[in-house]
Amino acid sequence: MLWAHCTAVYLITVFVCFLLYHEYDYISSKRNAYFYSSKPQPHQYTILVRGIPVSPGSSVSESVGNFFKEYHSSTYLSHVVIHRTNRLFFLIDYVKKIYRRFKHKQSEPVKEYSRFDDSFGVQKSNLENGDLEESLITEQWDASFSGQEVRSAFVFFRSRFGAAIASRLQQSEKPTEWVTEQAPEPDDVYWPFFQATFLQRWMSRVVIIVASTLLTVLFLIPVVLVQSLANLSQLEVWFPFLASILTAKVTRQIVTGYLPNLILQIFVKLVPPVMEFLSSIQGYISFSEIQRSACDKFLWFIIWNIFFANVLSGSFINLFSVLLDLRNIPSHLAVTVPAQASFFIAYVVTSGWTSTSSDLFRIIQLIQSLLRKCCCCNRTASDEFELPYIYYHREIPKILFFGLLGITYFFLAPLILPFLLVYFLLAYIIFKNQFLYVYAPKFETAGKFWPTVHNCMIFSLVLMHAIALGIFTVKKLSSASTLIFPLPVLTLLFNEYCRKRFLPNFVAYSAESLIKKDREDLNDSEMPQFFSELITAYMDPALSPLQCSDFDGHGVPSFSDISNDHIAPLLSHA
Amino acid sequence: MLWAHCTAVYLITVFVCFLLYHEYDYISSKRNAYFYSSKPQPHQYTILVRGIPVSPGSSVSESVGNFFKEYHSSTYLSHVVIHRTNRLFFLIDYVKKIYRRFKHKQSEPVKEYSRFDDSFGVQKSNLENGDLEESLITEQWDASFSGQEVRSAFVFFRSRFGAAIASRLQQSEKPTEWVTEQAPEPDDVYWPFFQATFLQRWMSRVVIIVASTLLTVLFLIPVVLVQSLANLSQLEVWFPFLASILTAKVTRQIVTGYLPNLILQIFVKLVPPVMEFLSSIQGYISFSEIQRSACDKFLWFIIWNIFFANVLSGSFINLFSVLLDLRNIPSHLAVTVPAQASFFIAYVVTSGWTSTSSDLFRIIQLIQSLLRKCCCCNRTASDEFELPYIYYHREIPKILFFGLLGITYFFLAPLILPFLLVYFLLAYIIFKNQFLYVYAPKFETAGKFWPTVHNCMIFSLVLMHAIALGIFTVKKLSSASTLIFPLPVLTLLFNEYCRKRFLPNFVAYSAESLIKKDREDLNDSEMPQFFSELITAYMDPALSPLQCSDFDGHGVPSFSDISNDHIAPLLSHA
Repeated sequence: MLWAHCTAVYLITVFVCFLLYHEYDYISSKRNAYFYSSKPQPHQYTILVRGIPVSPGSSVSESVGNFFKEYHSSTYLSHVVIHRTNRLFFLIDYVKKIYRRFKHKQSEPVKEYSRFDDSFGVQKSNLENGDLEESLITEQWDASFSGQEVRSAFVFFRSRFGAAIASRLQQSEKPTEWVTEQAPEPDDVYWPFFQATFLQRWMSRVVIIVASTLLTVLFLIPVVLVQSLANLSQLEVWFPFLASILTAKVTRQIVTGYLPNLILQIFVKLVPPVMEFLSSIQGYISFSEIQRSACDKFLWFIIWNIFFANVLSGSFINLFSVLLDLRNIPSHLAVTVPAQASFFIAYVVTSGWTSTSSDLFRIIQLIQSLLRKCCCCNRTASDEFELPYIYYHREIPKILFFGLLGITYFFLAPLILPFLLVYFLLAYIIFKNQFLYVYAPKFETAGKFWPTVHNCMIFSLVLMHAIALGIFTVKKLSSASTLIFPLPVLTLLFNEYCRKRFLPNFVAYSAESLIKKDREDLNDSEMPQFFSELITAYMDPALSPLQCSDFDGHGVPSFSDISNDHIAPLLSHA
Repeated sequence: MLWAHCTAVYLITVFVCFLLYHEYDYISSKRNAYFYSSKPQPHQYTILVRGIPVSPGSSVSESVGNFFKEYHSSTYLSHVVIHRTNRLFFLIDYVKKIYRRFKHKQSEPVKEYSRFDDSFGVQKSNLENGDLEESLITEQWDASFSGQEVRSAFVFFRSRFGAAIASRLQQSEKPTEWVTEQAPEPDDVYWPFFQATFLQRWMSRVVIIVASTLLTVLFLIPVVLVQSLANLSQLEVWFPFLASILTAKVTRQIVTGYLPNLILQIFVKLVPPVMEFLSSIQGYISFSEIQRSACDKFLWFIIWNIFFANVLSGSFINLFSVLLDLRNIPSHLAVTVPAQASFFIAYVVTSGWTSTSSDLFRIIQLIQSLLRKCCCCNRTASDEFELPYIYYHREIPKILFFGLLGITYFFLAPLILPFLLVYFLLAYIIFKNQFLYVYAPKFETAGKFWPTVHNCMIFSLVLMHAIALGIFTVKKLSSASTLIFPLPVLTLLFNEYCRKRFLPNFVAYSAESLIKKDREDLNDSEMPQFFSELITAYMDPALSPLQCSDFDGHGVPSFSDISNDHIAPLLSHA
């Protein structure tokens, strides 16, 4: 049996590595194909510059213009300096809210209309007189022209290659000044974080990494606390009227069996939004980066809190003392992992099958929408409707975690495999359906999530090797453990090779592709039109002219007194 | 006393970090100043390309030309493909040896000359008839033209910025093809490693890292073995005639006290050349990179084998079990480090003072040269003379190790500090003298060793914090250990900040500096001359025309029958 196990471990490793290599290769080539087939897109021609030094007596805009005219004269096209728009953002939000209340009241019967309270009356008259609108436009004007410039700018280039040169070479002698990076898609830009300096961004990054590590590591403490509070006798004290139900044997079993699990599930459900929030204040400039970062955070969160916490089950301190004693990790795992096999089979069924199927019905969203219709009846339902999009940072880690279970348990408890197979089939069908008919993509991922998937699979393999090593050591089969030993090393080397071989393609496109694509566009008659649109593509939503459709979502203008010359773009471009 | 210690640890950390920051800043600015003041140098305009894909029916040279004409037409100047020259190298070596013997025999009296053995007679006639010379030239011709091209090339550009663009952007869709990097200085090129493919280089890199780690970790085993063999009774068995001397008490003390130490020292002396050799087959393309890599290797070697092996003294397995038990490392260190204070004070005096002073007299080199004159009297002494250069990879780690001792022992045994002060003063004076009057630089380091120094100092600080933490824990002063705890974290954050702030400048020059420098040269009348010389700057020494000065080191031609048209360069440039 020993040799069968050993061979199985080797075979599955080779097989998974083979699949990983080909998938990396395939997605890498798909990425290139996507790039070659894409139309000219604004973000390909744009870079984001931060840490712009300003000499006294000149504005940020002048600095940017001078610098890029000086050093990138042949490809530089134009730029847009980013403005401080926090106040404006709140003002616009306020105006939209009032407008909506106003619209709603208008559509109600007159008897309701006459019962306007005083403050709303004032607001209404403000709105009708155009006072608010005027203050809004004044504020926009201020933000654009009176020194509220932030030391960041979007810079546009005439070619993709020119943008790549400017974004990938260190521009200034001081590495903290003129920090450049490729811009995200215009819709994907996350605006609030452009004001931070290099040091602030770096600090917030460090703080967030520490915070999310603490959240991951200490998460179980509140969960255990709440679980200990929500036991049967406590429930009887809180809800005395339930006493009769709770004494029934079936109810007791359900409550003692499912309540702790339910509490854990609710807590876990709260984590992806928290991780997304943490990522959003980490200094990223696009939603896609925020989601990728949140995805990584949630993945490690799940692996730690579902796998390790269950496997090394015991108190939090116990967990630490096990992990700090490096030598004995494999033997610890060898003892505890097989013991949890039935738990994880149950987990696949309860959490995997059900959560994936429930995605099909989107019950929570349905309830949310119904609740909103009933309670918040001061808004029209159509106000709130927007196309649903998939939360990658919530779904990808879950799927990967089932992959990890499959790899670590395949030789300890092969019974888990058919359950996982059903799960993956379900997930494939359901997600394919959802992608085709339900979700609208919020941004183009361009395959950039794949390295996360690859790394997680490599981690699963190494974890599996560690467990196998531990089992052979515990059973005192030293020849088998010697045989397994090179396997994790080889797997990590394979990973390192893949990093060299494929990862660069996921970070940036090559000079060859950029230049080829640029040449294709040379004779395209639509390019002048594209360039003129490019300059206005990156416009802070707070500074863009307010359309009445922004207010009610219908696209039907109803402010009769906003004259069209007010709607002209307020930003000038250098 | 506790608070005094705590404050001292904080103060010294802040002080060292302050110095490190300013020194990094200073060296970074010196680096830029050096670049701005430099004359146009070939390596600034040259990149090395490896992994050149060749389509069937065309040569490597054509591929390179087509690719760079296609994608870098505005800045591409020319290229030189590298050739397989191993055979040629041996042939040249052989010819040189024979020529030297020939010259030497010629200068001896006639009676010696008449006793030439047969084989030498044949060689002499070969030499006189020009046979060997002809076969040499044939071989050079073969290497240049008949398909012995290696898939690597030096590519020259018209501007520094053009070279930087080509070297720092990924060129091809396949990251393993058209791999580019900035070329080293022409004299600094390490030729033997251009034939390796991407995979070979990567494999050799991995193998060498493993080998040097094993050497570092397992080094003490042979040393302990030899030490155990070379004890007093064993010596009496080997050298019976020494018995009378060895029985004297003074001799016994010296032998038992110094012999193990001497053996260790001899073994340690052998390590830098071994590390340099390992680095040389790791795939680097320049001597400077080899030395930098060997410097890092030897540094960790010293820290592990002199510091940790002494401090955690005990067997090799003991060492490992201590290190694998992460939690207890600080307390282990706290117990063992202070106990070794007197040993390290003695080490500073014996190893530091003496080895630095001995550098002044260069005794080993003197003995070597004398020995060579006496024994190898078949060569003239002047044949062998070359200017000495400093082995950075041997000296820098030693100096850094004394810095580490100073930082870790300053609050455990401040008595070490005056000894270290004397050492550093001595080292400053002696090395300044040696740099000014003795050593000739073999390559321009351009400050690139500084990051190593910085990292080692940061490591020393963190080690010191770990020891302090251990001491406070062992003495059960939990408030003090809590106070110390943030210090290593803050130090590592400081290091991370310095990496962001300064390190990019040590990797490559910024676009701004490159373009400024390019513009300065635009009106320089010497540039056409420079560009024409640039094309021949990177010539494999095995392919360059043989000058008679190559043979005897005098620069006086003595082969009367090498006609000048044979000496014309054999390589053609596309």
